[in-house]
Amino acid sequence: MAIRLYDLAGADPDLRFSPYCWRAKFALAHKGLAVETIPWRFTEKDAIAFSGQERVPVLVDGDKAVHDSWAIACYLDDAYPDRPSLLGREAARAATRFLNSWADTVLNPGIIRFVLSDIFAKIHPKDCDYFRTSREQRFGMSLEAYGAEREKHLPAFRQSLTPLRTTLATQPYLAGERPAYADYIVFGSFQWPRCISTIALLEPDDPIFAWRERMLDAFDGMGRKAMAA
Amino acid sequence: MAIRLYDLAGADPDLRFSPYCWRAKFALAHKGLAVETIPWRFTEKDAIAFSGQERVPVLVDGDKAVHDSWAIACYLDDAYPDRPSLLGREAARAATRFLNSWADTVLNPGIIRFVLSDIFAKIHPKDCDYFRTSREQRFGMSLEAYGAEREKHLPAFRQSLTPLRTTLATQPYLAGERPAYADYIVFGSFQWPRCISTIALLEPDDPIFAWRERMLDAFDGMGRKAMAA
Repeated sequence: MAIRLYDLAGADPDLRFSPYCWRAKFALAHKGLAVETIPWRFTEKDAIAFSGQERVPVLVDGDKAVHDSWAIACYLDDAYPDRPSLLGREAARAATRFLNSWADTVLNPGIIRFVLSDIFAKIHPKDCDYFRTSREQRFGMSLEAYGAEREKHLPAFRQSLTPLRTTLATQPYLAGERPAYADYIVFGSFQWPRCISTIALLEPDDPIFAWRERMLDAFDGMGRKAMAA
Repeated sequence: MAIRLYDLAGADPDLRFSPYCWRAKFALAHKGLAVETIPWRFTEKDAIAFSGQERVPVLVDGDKAVHDSWAIACYLDDAYPDRPSLLGREAARAATRFLNSWADTVLNPGIIRFVLSDIFAKIHPKDCDYFRTSREQRFGMSLEAYGAEREKHLPAFRQSLTPLRTTLATQPYLAGERPAYADYIVFGSFQWPRCISTIALLEPDDPIFAWRERMLDAFDGMGRKAMAA
């Protein structure tokens, strides 16, 4: 029997717009697997009750029912290992590259506001003119103005960490069961304020805090032993 | 000769705080490679001129000089393939999971504001009460209030796509040379407004626009042929 997919539809049954169902349909196409999509509306909870929950996409493959677009992608790679890989080795470096881009363009620019004055206070005296001039040009204002009222920006900064937090809610390290370069990218970002500033960017009950503690213990405490503020 | 790493230092040479140098130091520890770190200050451009640029980290391994933390991680995996992998297969699924978290917590919540009223106009009449009630509870305001003045939010939305844009500046697909599940995650997010709304979320000169065009052509135009607004 063909694979079936419950797929969110509009009033017009040909209108299929759910981002999560599109992930699943492209995943099936990538694996070269035929699928019969079944239009489903928000209130048709009974039609997918067999899946044990109330949302689409739901994939039915023989006697297996899989819900959640991520679980569907993992299931397809595991169940059809001889077909093109969705999450395999070829994609590993490239996917970590996105995390690298996020750290460079969201995380590090988010952190620098909190540590700029601390950095200026601790760099070598011969670097001070260079640092002030280059950073004031980059930020378009004085170091003092850019770093002013930094506590005010903490809630928005912590909010910007949501993708990290939700990832670490499902796995102990960004690279999975064990740390790898994905973790070192983000750990580097947090080691930076730890070395140079006493500001507490993370609250102790944040899952990112617990992850950072594990990273500080890695390699015989290499990060924890480093000179810190 | 031991591997050497030029490592940003403060006035105190033991103070090493650069996030990018920390990435490289953890990458070396992960590979089990000994390293001699050399304290370097911002203005010591001459000391690393041999690398052809002016920033640290710079790794020197025999007669090879590698700069940029990402290039260093790739170099170490390529030059020392028998040691634990930094960017290898074990980490692939986990790294794509971060992209999935980013799409779910930043990208999709960013898009929904622009398409909420369009979705409400096109869902099946029997779903309207359910949709309004559940979404107004989620957003804490009426559908109309949440979707008001949506053009005003476009610049901030486009700014939030920076990690995508910078990744796609270095590789044609999020999964590398060919599309894989990382691409389908993000394509699903953009297919959603394409199906249900006429709003132009991306400007035609945005590299993300060109990537989306390639994705619309994938699998014989599966995405392009779908019913759209």
